[in-house]
Amino acid sequence: MRDTIEFLLHDWLRVDALLDRPRFADHSRDTIAQVLDTCERIAREKFAPFNRVADVEEPRFDGEKVILPASSHAAAQAYVDSGMLAAAQDYEMGGMQLPCVVEMAANAFFSRAGIGIGGGALLTSGNANLLMAHGTPQQKEVFAKNEFAGRWFGTMCLSEPQAGSSLSDIATRALPDGDDFETDALGPRYRLRGHKMWISNGEHELTENIVHLVLAKIPGPDGQLIPGTRGISLFIVPKKLVNPHGALTGERNDVVLAGLNHKLGYRGIPNTLLNFGEGRFPVRGAPGAIGYRVGAPGEGLRCMFHMMNEARIAIGLGAAMLGHAGYDASLQYARDRSQGRPVGRAGKDASKPPVRIVEHADVKRMLLAQKSYVEGALALCLYCARLVDEQHTGAPATGREAAMLLEVLTPIVKSWPSEWCLEANSLAIQVHGGYGYTRDFPVEQYWRDNRLNMIHEGTHGIQAQDLLGRKVVMEGGAALKLLGARIDATVERASSDAAWSAHAQSLRTAWQAVLSATQAAWSTGTPDDALTNAMPYMQAFGHTVLAWVWLELVLAAGRARETGRTDAMAGKCHAARYFFAYELPKVAAWLAVVQARDPLCRDMRDEWF
Amino acid sequence: MRDTIEFLLHDWLRVDALLDRPRFADHSRDTIAQVLDTCERIAREKFAPFNRVADVEEPRFDGEKVILPASSHAAAQAYVDSGMLAAAQDYEMGGMQLPCVVEMAANAFFSRAGIGIGGGALLTSGNANLLMAHGTPQQKEVFAKNEFAGRWFGTMCLSEPQAGSSLSDIATRALPDGDDFETDALGPRYRLRGHKMWISNGEHELTENIVHLVLAKIPGPDGQLIPGTRGISLFIVPKKLVNPHGALTGERNDVVLAGLNHKLGYRGIPNTLLNFGEGRFPVRGAPGAIGYRVGAPGEGLRCMFHMMNEARIAIGLGAAMLGHAGYDASLQYARDRSQGRPVGRAGKDASKPPVRIVEHADVKRMLLAQKSYVEGALALCLYCARLVDEQHTGAPATGREAAMLLEVLTPIVKSWPSEWCLEANSLAIQVHGGYGYTRDFPVEQYWRDNRLNMIHEGTHGIQAQDLLGRKVVMEGGAALKLLGARIDATVERASSDAAWSAHAQSLRTAWQAVLSATQAAWSTGTPDDALTNAMPYMQAFGHTVLAWVWLELVLAAGRARETGRTDAMAGKCHAARYFFAYELPKVAAWLAVVQARDPLCRDMRDEWF
Repeated sequence: MRDTIEFLLHDWLRVDALLDRPRFADHSRDTIAQVLDTCERIAREKFAPFNRVADVEEPRFDGEKVILPASSHAAAQAYVDSGMLAAAQDYEMGGMQLPCVVEMAANAFFSRAGIGIGGGALLTSGNANLLMAHGTPQQKEVFAKNEFAGRWFGTMCLSEPQAGSSLSDIATRALPDGDDFETDALGPRYRLRGHKMWISNGEHELTENIVHLVLAKIPGPDGQLIPGTRGISLFIVPKKLVNPHGALTGERNDVVLAGLNHKLGYRGIPNTLLNFGEGRFPVRGAPGAIGYRVGAPGEGLRCMFHMMNEARIAIGLGAAMLGHAGYDASLQYARDRSQGRPVGRAGKDASKPPVRIVEHADVKRMLLAQKSYVEGALALCLYCARLVDEQHTGAPATGREAAMLLEVLTPIVKSWPSEWCLEANSLAIQVHGGYGYTRDFPVEQYWRDNRLNMIHEGTHGIQAQDLLGRKVVMEGGAALKLLGARIDATVERASSDAAWSAHAQSLRTAWQAVLSATQAAWSTGTPDDALTNAMPYMQAFGHTVLAWVWLELVLAAGRARETGRTDAMAGKCHAARYFFAYELPKVAAWLAVVQARDPLCRDMRDEWF
Repeated sequence: MRDTIEFLLHDWLRVDALLDRPRFADHSRDTIAQVLDTCERIAREKFAPFNRVADVEEPRFDGEKVILPASSHAAAQAYVDSGMLAAAQDYEMGGMQLPCVVEMAANAFFSRAGIGIGGGALLTSGNANLLMAHGTPQQKEVFAKNEFAGRWFGTMCLSEPQAGSSLSDIATRALPDGDDFETDALGPRYRLRGHKMWISNGEHELTENIVHLVLAKIPGPDGQLIPGTRGISLFIVPKKLVNPHGALTGERNDVVLAGLNHKLGYRGIPNTLLNFGEGRFPVRGAPGAIGYRVGAPGEGLRCMFHMMNEARIAIGLGAAMLGHAGYDASLQYARDRSQGRPVGRAGKDASKPPVRIVEHADVKRMLLAQKSYVEGALALCLYCARLVDEQHTGAPATGREAAMLLEVLTPIVKSWPSEWCLEANSLAIQVHGGYGYTRDFPVEQYWRDNRLNMIHEGTHGIQAQDLLGRKVVMEGGAALKLLGARIDATVERASSDAAWSAHAQSLRTAWQAVLSATQAAWSTGTPDDALTNAMPYMQAFGHTVLAWVWLELVLAAGRARETGRTDAMAGKCHAARYFFAYELPKVAAWLAVVQARDPLCRDMRDEWF
């Protein structure tokens, strides 16, 4: 994978050019290589050997503490020590001022080695990043800085037992805490009461404190909660209270672990139900969890989306890396395992020794499919991370363009790896045969772990609604047009290469079909008509985007091949051919119902099931 | 599900007509209903409540015995007591002379309630059925009869650690046991030595004895094993030796549990590695497991295929029922859970209460997809079982036709439910959201359990090779022509119905594409050319067959609707519409590479990965 990452960063995304910008002046190809070296080594030594341990020794609550395996503590500490939590931050925040795309690439090694180990670092840096964008100077200094330093870890608390995807129904309430609530150094102080479900890392002993970012509603003057998402505000709720200098005051906040969820996978990360403010641990003489508002009242969801968009790229990367882990394992297995013989015109020659299964066409198909999914997904994730860099450090015009592209690509970068790298994991099991179905081999765990990614951080269905309902139509379709321009440019460049001009044409056709379906879906102007088939639309959109990514990689491979690496680059090109021949044709099948605004699903009646 | 089964048996497959045949003279619609009632009740009472127990309390070996939960013992006993092990057998074998299609339908309830409970009854009756076809009268009397009575359970021992899909490489040896080896009342007696892997129910205490059916090679005069499958013979190897009257002799055979496999799912059934004849328990003064040959030397694989074909229908049914269990659970959840609101032109009205999620179009889509997969798969399984009845009790001409159809449909009935009802299980998780990912809900287990079905009893890849490499070309394509004639007849009938003539045309087009791809694949006469894309060929073939099944069901629903059941029949029709609109278009995508004999996968090189 390291070679692929180098190829993506340098040959394709031309990170060197990025390093010319003042923010990255201290960095070079060498410093990037050192960061990748370090992360690759820590992942290999502290994460990979303990991935099964984290699965088997599920988090448990002893009545007081949540117990994790010692190896998970060691992995979390090693991650903290690497400084990666703050990799992309300013020097003054303890950061390294690395480009986001390099940070993402370096983190890939950890996700591949053990997605459930190490304490959900991405949540912590995402949490702190949100505070950097929306917090007060004091909130940044006290909370964000300690998170970046790994002294405290963070969570995001959105869902409630009765409100998963539907945030407008959250019922957690926040009331001003005393008459002086607005004068607290840490921000306007409230008391929160409610229940939060599916909270990753909601309780653990990895760090001395936990910084919860909590969505809650501030009741109106009549004491009623405002319906919908407009009433939602955002609060910092530390597990243990701290003073304005970031020292623990010794007070426990009124936040209680109500239960651990017992999951199918991703077991290394404690997933919790938390009760806020039920009064079990009254604080400062009263029940209610103390929280400090971030941003203006009613702006909570907007602030949280800052974190969610970043989280969604991270989810995509996690899914891609689980896929990659399965690909690596099944490739190794296919190279080691001998079984069966080629079929000649006269059948099989049983007197010959068996061949390695990597030589069977159908095994190669399963490996190629995995390669096209996992390397394509990784490329897309790094592309999006590169857009984040452009948004933050590019010229104003290209920065705005990058931001728009990110809007439309976010549902894809979250959903596509989640769906197709899960399929890759299933193929990895299949390559192993019966052995893949046992817990003696790692692939079944990857498959279980990856199943979560279509659910958390916005389900697959939510992503599809976001894509077709919002992103492709926003600002008159501006984001869609920008993406189309990039696809057209790639098609243009590939068309002049005889080996790839037919592929370029296939991509053009697929994109035209996506555009046509977009228009058809919205032609009645009725959300119901359009969104009934949002899911096949997103699947078609995703596959088209990935075909574009693969064609981009082919062009980059052509340049890279001039400097050697012929086998690796031949592999990239063959994976691209696979994607165009075996995957891209599915686009037409998905779009048929979108184009026709087929009302079939909506028309189904409960009593007919 | 009961209603669906009644619909399939009576409205579609017209089992009533079958009952006119002499073999089934004692049966009526009433007796069939009683059998279904009984099985439904036992499955509900003895299986369903303990499905999670069987998963959590995995089989374990205490050094002497394999321990299963008490509930699994009780379920196995209830199954034995129901008489279902011998349901389709002659009265004189203790059977009920039920049609195979009814037996299969009745067994569906057990598979849906707990696929890993009850001792793998299907293996036992399959084992005994094989002996009925190929055993000596004494072997039938001693072994088959005691298996049908549930006194002993059976296994099939094919794979070895080094030879999974590749049976030609098995290394278990069988040597004649003494000079008088041919005169044993139980059949020619041999001593077996070797290792057998993935043996379901290879060791347990559910019954007083276990009847292993073991593939092994009898060395040639030079002491060498004959390469390939020609050298394979079949043996009965009882765990405990028995006398010619079926009484245990008190001697333990030289068969030893070498280990239990720890699997991802299907955990209720102990899956074992067995050592035969390693001498740990010498028997009658010598090492070597005593086995009695079934059929002629070298005919072992042919005999075993008798069992495997039946087993493959059972696998399909198991996959369909796991899918059904997930469908039932997610439908219930979608009806109970309220969340979210419809999107109107002005967006969502947050002041309205949330709706049940079954009312969201995307949830209906996920339920419809499941319905189309699981009911379609069930229908296909029962159709194949009905063919078995025709083969055994029909007029010679229709019997031969049924046998041919079974040949070509067997790879589909095994593979299609395995692939698509697994997908159904994934959708069932998705409908549940985060809850579906927890072990508090049953759907994650169904998904894990179902992942096995693409692997055991011939992997997905093996099925694809069987279909394109053998079944569609056998006897000049005779089986393919027969299937085509049935599809044509259905298309013909549906074409006269305005509501379905377009669907009929789509089916005709898909089938023509399958035929054309079949021809193109084999046009060079080179197996390599044809079989490189056997997998997408099988996927396309399977989807086309299922479209045909759904069109058949639509026509049957038209008749059934005349007798009421309008909601249920509307549901069948809507699931069919779903399948044609959302699934059938994939056929073209899969066939493109087959039609082109795309050599892409074969051309991939190891060093390019």
